[in-house]
Amino acid sequence: MRKAVVLLSGGLDSATVLAIARQQGFACHALSIDYGQRHRVELEAAVRVALALGAVEQKTVSIDLAAFGGSALTDARIAVPTRGVQKDAIPVTYVPARNTIMLSLALAWAEVLEARDVFFGANAVDYSGYPDCRPEYMRAFERMANLATKAAVEGHRLTLHTPIIAMSKAKIIEQGLALGVDYGLTVSCYQADSEARACGECDACRLRRAGFETVGVHDPTRYRSN
Amino acid sequence: MRKAVVLLSGGLDSATVLAIARQQGFACHALSIDYGQRHRVELEAAVRVALALGAVEQKTVSIDLAAFGGSALTDARIAVPTRGVQKDAIPVTYVPARNTIMLSLALAWAEVLEARDVFFGANAVDYSGYPDCRPEYMRAFERMANLATKAAVEGHRLTLHTPIIAMSKAKIIEQGLALGVDYGLTVSCYQADSEARACGECDACRLRRAGFETVGVHDPTRYRSN
Repeated sequence: MRKAVVLLSGGLDSATVLAIARQQGFACHALSIDYGQRHRVELEAAVRVALALGAVEQKTVSIDLAAFGGSALTDARIAVPTRGVQKDAIPVTYVPARNTIMLSLALAWAEVLEARDVFFGANAVDYSGYPDCRPEYMRAFERMANLATKAAVEGHRLTLHTPIIAMSKAKIIEQGLALGVDYGLTVSCYQADSEARACGECDACRLRRAGFETVGVHDPTRYRSN
Repeated sequence: MRKAVVLLSGGLDSATVLAIARQQGFACHALSIDYGQRHRVELEAAVRVALALGAVEQKTVSIDLAAFGGSALTDARIAVPTRGVQKDAIPVTYVPARNTIMLSLALAWAEVLEARDVFFGANAVDYSGYPDCRPEYMRAFERMANLATKAAVEGHRLTLHTPIIAMSKAKIIEQGLALGVDYGLTVSCYQADSEARACGECDACRLRRAGFETVGVHDPTRYRSN
């Protein structure tokens, strides 16, 4: 069975991507990155999701991006916005170079595993303001990766799969439900509490809730106010 | 004064690069990465070198690449080779995706600092077997970086400087001595002891010693056998 490294945050998007990778027949090695984010309960969700969807293993690697500051997700002095996504602006929840760092770690693990495939749940629809969610960025990363590694030099091409990059949130949910994803296990909220209950107000919660509404299915998210 | 992030390992090469960046007039923010390497004394050397060469600040970010294994530098089960560099093979001291990870972290800090320049002491002469030391890799990383960040989207181009990439070890030493680098502060050895004394036998020691011999200057390295 072909091996793949799947970046798994514990949120809705990456859980769907793990299900897609499994569906495509990959033995999935799930990689979660603890980058000093506020939403640590997401990492616990990642373990639950990895188990539920049949990953071969799950690793969490810690890296203290909070040391650099500059984002509402890692810097406690910057407030998480709750007034809805501004489509054309780069949100304060953007973490500097986050996707580049996460993909670099996935690349490292892929090389050690001799995996030729990395799956990543970037989405250019909901996160159009994040430069490192765009398809042209993904292509540039893949090109760089294929010059970076021992495996690439030896002729083993690495493929970066971004199967949900162009999907709406509703489409992602439909796809995941069809593959048996239990979204009740996932946490997307930027400021979930210690029991993994979502705030219902941050951008991630709004996008997620609207997705379930559009699909017209029950939203299994546990909200604090419910 | 223009700001730059300078990757500083504490070894001979990156100390020279810091001196070059200072000479070019940059306010230098030195970034050291603790990737679970065996040669931790290098990180202490990085602090000494940053102070001696007038960096504005020095940060060490930890990331546990040993979790992935696969290299003699992070995996205690793989022996560090002492039989000289094999020019055409990829050495077991190669750390999977190491340079990609280190450059990604430099990119993140540069974005937070609003620095447009990153300096990196990669060398394609001594380390011709390492794919991520080649000029074509550096160009691909720079291109990816200029699609990855908020700063890039806003029109601020990032430049990745690799001033010693094509220099011989002797040339690097000559350049550094001309700029006042005290190489007695640096540690290059892959298996230096807890007092930062070099083994004199690993590939890094051999390259370094040969460099001083070629230049014809005193080698200030402290060796265990001396």
